[in-house]
Amino acid sequence: MRMVDLIIKKREKQELTKEEISFIIEGFTNKSIPNYQMSAFLMAVYFNGMTDEESTNMALAMMNSGDVFDLSSIEGIKVDKHSTGGVGDKVSIVLGPLMAACGAKFAKMSGRGLGHTGGTLDKLESIKGFNIEMSEKDFIKQVNEIGLAIIGQSDNITPADKYIYALRDVTGTVPAIPLIASSIMSKKLASGANAICLDVKVGSGAFLETITEAKKLAELMVNIGNLAGRKMSAIITSMDEPLGNNIGNALEVKEAIEMLKGGGPEDLKIVVYEICKQLLIAAEITCEKEAEALLDEKISSGEAFNKLVEMVVAQGGDKEVILNPELLPTAKYKIPFIAYKSGFIEEMDTEQIGVAGMLLGAGRRTLDDEIDMAVGLEFVNKVGAYVNKDDVICYLHANSKNVEQSLKILQEAIKIGKNKRVLKLIEGVIK
Amino acid sequence: MRMVDLIIKKREKQELTKEEISFIIEGFTNKSIPNYQMSAFLMAVYFNGMTDEESTNMALAMMNSGDVFDLSSIEGIKVDKHSTGGVGDKVSIVLGPLMAACGAKFAKMSGRGLGHTGGTLDKLESIKGFNIEMSEKDFIKQVNEIGLAIIGQSDNITPADKYIYALRDVTGTVPAIPLIASSIMSKKLASGANAICLDVKVGSGAFLETITEAKKLAELMVNIGNLAGRKMSAIITSMDEPLGNNIGNALEVKEAIEMLKGGGPEDLKIVVYEICKQLLIAAEITCEKEAEALLDEKISSGEAFNKLVEMVVAQGGDKEVILNPELLPTAKYKIPFIAYKSGFIEEMDTEQIGVAGMLLGAGRRTLDDEIDMAVGLEFVNKVGAYVNKDDVICYLHANSKNVEQSLKILQEAIKIGKNKRVLKLIEGVIK
Repeated sequence: MRMVDLIIKKREKQELTKEEISFIIEGFTNKSIPNYQMSAFLMAVYFNGMTDEESTNMALAMMNSGDVFDLSSIEGIKVDKHSTGGVGDKVSIVLGPLMAACGAKFAKMSGRGLGHTGGTLDKLESIKGFNIEMSEKDFIKQVNEIGLAIIGQSDNITPADKYIYALRDVTGTVPAIPLIASSIMSKKLASGANAICLDVKVGSGAFLETITEAKKLAELMVNIGNLAGRKMSAIITSMDEPLGNNIGNALEVKEAIEMLKGGGPEDLKIVVYEICKQLLIAAEITCEKEAEALLDEKISSGEAFNKLVEMVVAQGGDKEVILNPELLPTAKYKIPFIAYKSGFIEEMDTEQIGVAGMLLGAGRRTLDDEIDMAVGLEFVNKVGAYVNKDDVICYLHANSKNVEQSLKILQEAIKIGKNKRVLKLIEGVIK
Repeated sequence: MRMVDLIIKKREKQELTKEEISFIIEGFTNKSIPNYQMSAFLMAVYFNGMTDEESTNMALAMMNSGDVFDLSSIEGIKVDKHSTGGVGDKVSIVLGPLMAACGAKFAKMSGRGLGHTGGTLDKLESIKGFNIEMSEKDFIKQVNEIGLAIIGQSDNITPADKYIYALRDVTGTVPAIPLIASSIMSKKLASGANAICLDVKVGSGAFLETITEAKKLAELMVNIGNLAGRKMSAIITSMDEPLGNNIGNALEVKEAIEMLKGGGPEDLKIVVYEICKQLLIAAEITCEKEAEALLDEKISSGEAFNKLVEMVVAQGGDKEVILNPELLPTAKYKIPFIAYKSGFIEEMDTEQIGVAGMLLGAGRRTLDDEIDMAVGLEFVNKVGAYVNKDDVICYLHANSKNVEQSLKILQEAIKIGKNKRVLKLIEGVIK
C-alpha cells in the first residue's frame, strides 16, 4: 500500500477501506507517512468528504493509536457527555452529580479551556485542593464507589488525533466535518463510556455558525458512535449568548452549586436536563416521560448536591467550599457594565464575551497562560431582556487586569435595539 | 503574511494576488514554508483551480526562483518550441535548422527522455562528439553566428518548479492543469525566447488523454505566455500513434536528416510545418499563406540541412555522420514484428510502444539508466494501414536486451481489426 495511491483515491472521491484508513493513521502516527502526504490527504478529505464508515474507521484507528480505557470493571451503565466548546458551559459539574444520583456511572475525562471557551478541569480546580490527576485504577474505584469522577485526559489518549490536529491547524484543514467528528469521537470512544450524549454548540460563540453544519456534525458523530457500538445522542444548543449567567471558573462552580441546590438560571437547567434525559433513557434508568420528575426529585432531595460533595471529597477538594460557596476565590473588584442606551438586548457576540472574560484572566490565550480562578463575568440581563440606559447588563469580577479592554469588547459585543429577540436554546435532538 | 491564510484563501476559491503567490513560491524555495503546507495548498489548487493571472504569477515566480536567460544580445526574433512529451518526437531536430534557415533564431534549451518518452538531448548525443553543454556566452555567440543551438538546461533553471514537482509526484497533485501549465511555462519563460509554440500531445502516448483537457492546458499556457509578454501559439497533436516511423535515438536523428533532405514521413512533416508556420508568423518573417512555400524552399535548396550540419559542427559533432547517416550507431539485430492476423491497424497504445523501445535500451526507466543510442523501433505500418497476417508492422533494432518482452508488449499494444481508422493528427491550433 502506498500513501500516494490513497491520496489519489480520496482525491477521486472513492471510499477508503478500513485497512487503508488504518494504514494512514498508523503510518502517520509512527512517522512512516510524512506530514506533506498527510496534509494533502486532509485537504482532499476537506473537498471530498468521507462516508460514515470511513469517519468511523478513522475515529477507531485514531482511538487505537493510544490508551483505550476499559471501564468494564465499573458496574452499571457508564455515561459520558461532550460539548464542542462554549462560553459559560458548566454543564458537566451539574450533570455528573445528577446522573450519579440517578444511579448512572459518570466516568468523565475532561479538558482545559483555550481561547474564548472554558474547560471543566479549570473550573473544578477553583475548589481548593481538588485534584484532577488519578491513576486508572483509582478512577475506576472512585466511580464504582460514589458513581462519578472527573479527571484530566491521559497524555497518551489518541496521539494520532493530536498530531493530525496540529497539522490541520497549520494547513487550512480544520473546518472539515468528517475530521472534526472523527477527532472528537476518537477521544470519546477511547474514554470507554457505553452511552454518550454530545452537546453541539452553534452560533456566535461556537466554531460552527450554522444549524445545518451543526446538525451534520451531530448526525455524523452519532452515526460514528453507533457504528462503534455505543448508545449515542446529540443535542444542538445555541451559543448566541453565554450558557447560564456566570463566566469564569469559581463563578461557574458557584452557579453549578446553585443549580444543584434547586436554583440557578433556567437556560442552564434546560440544557442539563435535556442531556440527562438522553443519558437516562440510553442507560434505561427511566423513560422519557418520567425523566424530568426523577431529576427534579434528585435535586430537591439533595441527593445530587451530595454527590458533588462526595466527588469533591474523594478528589481531595475542600468540602467547606461546596457547602459555603462564598469561600470560593473572589475578585477584588466588581465593576458594572451598563447599558449604553435603552432597548432590548438583541444580539450578543458570545465569542467576544468569552474573549472579554479571558482577558480578565478567566481563560488562556495559549496553553501556557495562567488562569485567575476568581475573575469573570456575571450577567444580569441577556438576549431578549429590556434594559434602560445605565441598567447593569453584567458585572466584571476583576483583579485589575485588562478591565478597560474588556469593557470595550463588551460594548461592541452586545447590541441593544428595538426588537425583542427570543432565542431558541435547543435547536434539535439527534439520536 | 501567513501561509495558512493563503491556503485557506485558495481553499475558499478566492484569487491570490501576485504578492501572495510570490510569497508562496519564494518561501517554499527558501524552505521557510514547509512541504506540508505546500502540499495542502497544491491539493486546494487541484480542487479549486487558479485564474490565468494566478497561473501566470506562479509561472513568473517559479521562473524568478533560478537562472533567467537574457537573450537580448541575440539579434532578431528568438523562437522556441516545447512538446509536452511524445513518442518518436524528433521535431526540434528538424525544426531548429528550418527556422534558422528562414532567418529566425532558435535558441533552445532541451531536456532528456524519461519513461516512455524520448528527449532531444539524448537523440543529438547519438551524433559522435555532439556536445550539449555550453556557457551562456558561447550559446548566445553560436545562435548569433549560425542561427541555432540546442543545449541542456541549466541546473539552476526554475528550482522552485523542481521542488514543487517532486512534492506533487508524492502527494497526488500531478494532474492539475494550472500546476502543469505554470511548471512548463516557468521553464519556457526562463529560457528567454520572444515567440514560443507549444505542442500539446493528446492520446494514448500522452499524459493528457482527452482533447478537452489538452485544449484547456494549451489555452492556459498560451494565456500565461501572452500575459508574460511573449508571442504564443499552441498546437494540439495526436499521440495515438508514434510521430514519424522511427523511435530510438540514432533512428530518430536519421529520420530527421531524411526530412531535412526532402524525404521523411508525412506526419512528421505536418507537425514540423505547423509549428514552423506559427513561429514564422509570430516572428513576422512571413505570412500564413506563404509559410509553406518558404519552408519547402528552405528544404529543397538544402539550406535547412546545411543549418543542421553547421550546428553539429559548432557543437563538436562529427559532420560525416550527418552527411552519411549510415555512420550513426546501429544495432546488432533487426527483428521484424509481424501482424498476428490480417486487418486494419485500429489502435496503438503509444505509451506501451514507447515502453517497448525503452526496454530495448532506447530510453530510461529512471534518470540513472544508461541509454543505448542504436536501438529502437522502426515502423513500416501505422494506424489505418491494412496488413496481411505475417506482414511486418515494425522492426526492432536490438542489441539482445529485452527483445522478447518488447515483442510481447507490441503484441498487446497494437490492435488489428476490421475498421479503417483515420487519425486526426492536428486537433487544434490555439493562439
